[in-house]
Amino acid sequence: MSTPTYFWEDFTPGLVKTFGPVKVEREAIIDFARQFDPQPFHLSEEAGRASLFGGLAASGWHTAAMTMRLMCDGFLLDSSSLGSPGLDSLKWHKPVLVGDELTARMTVLNSRPMNSKPHVGLVQTRWETLNQRGEVVMTIESWAMFRRRTPGEPAPVEPAPAAD
Amino acid sequence: MSTPTYFWEDFTPGLVKTFGPVKVEREAIIDFARQFDPQPFHLSEEAGRASLFGGLAASGWHTAAMTMRLMCDGFLLDSSSLGSPGLDSLKWHKPVLVGDELTARMTVLNSRPMNSKPHVGLVQTRWETLNQRGEVVMTIESWAMFRRRTPGEPAPVEPAPAAD
Repeated sequence: MSTPTYFWEDFTPGLVKTFGPVKVEREAIIDFARQFDPQPFHLSEEAGRASLFGGLAASGWHTAAMTMRLMCDGFLLDSSSLGSPGLDSLKWHKPVLVGDELTARMTVLNSRPMNSKPHVGLVQTRWETLNQRGEVVMTIESWAMFRRRTPGEPAPVEPAPAAD
Repeated sequence: MSTPTYFWEDFTPGLVKTFGPVKVEREAIIDFARQFDPQPFHLSEEAGRASLFGGLAASGWHTAAMTMRLMCDGFLLDSSSLGSPGLDSLKWHKPVLVGDELTARMTVLNSRPMNSKPHVGLVQTRWETLNQRGEVVMTIESWAMFRRRTPGEPAPVEPAPAAD
């Protein structure tokens, strides 16, 4: 594996990156829904129109997965990514409908070393997924782990009194 | 569409339901990762073993999607579900590896009418996804909207001083 471009040190608070667009195809909405979220408003135009969404709408999990793919292609696959411990929040603000074009905007909120693993750092980011009208359809606040370009000092065996 | 069994009124705080299991197949992990999260540790055993996960691991988004399917088959498809505004948190606690068997446990935390839509109620639930050893691999706290069996009074045109 070649050396990635982006390590933990590169994700400094305030950094903003934008990725995409990706077009949301009817077949992709239905295929994801059949596998993972077969509620009627994710499977047919008719049920979608009769729902709060007003049309055939992508599963919120599909929107999250499509956004993850934008993040992968945009920077994660060329980074020292080690995975994620989780999300602080995920909001679905507006429906994602057939033919929408999604872009993703990532803002770095916080960054800190991981005390238990001196070669790893944590990065908190906000993800905003926008449609072709510039409307925010989804927001996520997430933590991710990245290998450090320069490992920190190993944590002391006896924790210091004020260590986190 | 026939009348669903579960309406908003049926999700009372304290209710617990368990669904599954579903077996996590190698091909399903790789297929999801190729589409949405093609990081090396989700695509090959070798990269998985070299990662913090210790083996070929399902994308966290795949674990969420598999859990959503358990919820759909368990009760959502026979409910008055109207979708979800989002999650308060999502934590990935442990890796999900090839051959794991996942069950999902749903606990109702809170329930309240939706003031802006008298025919809709909100339900807050905790989802716990467990593997075959009973270890919690993922937790979610989520809000969902359900149609009410008996619609409430319409909200007053002039909001009351202490209304939420």
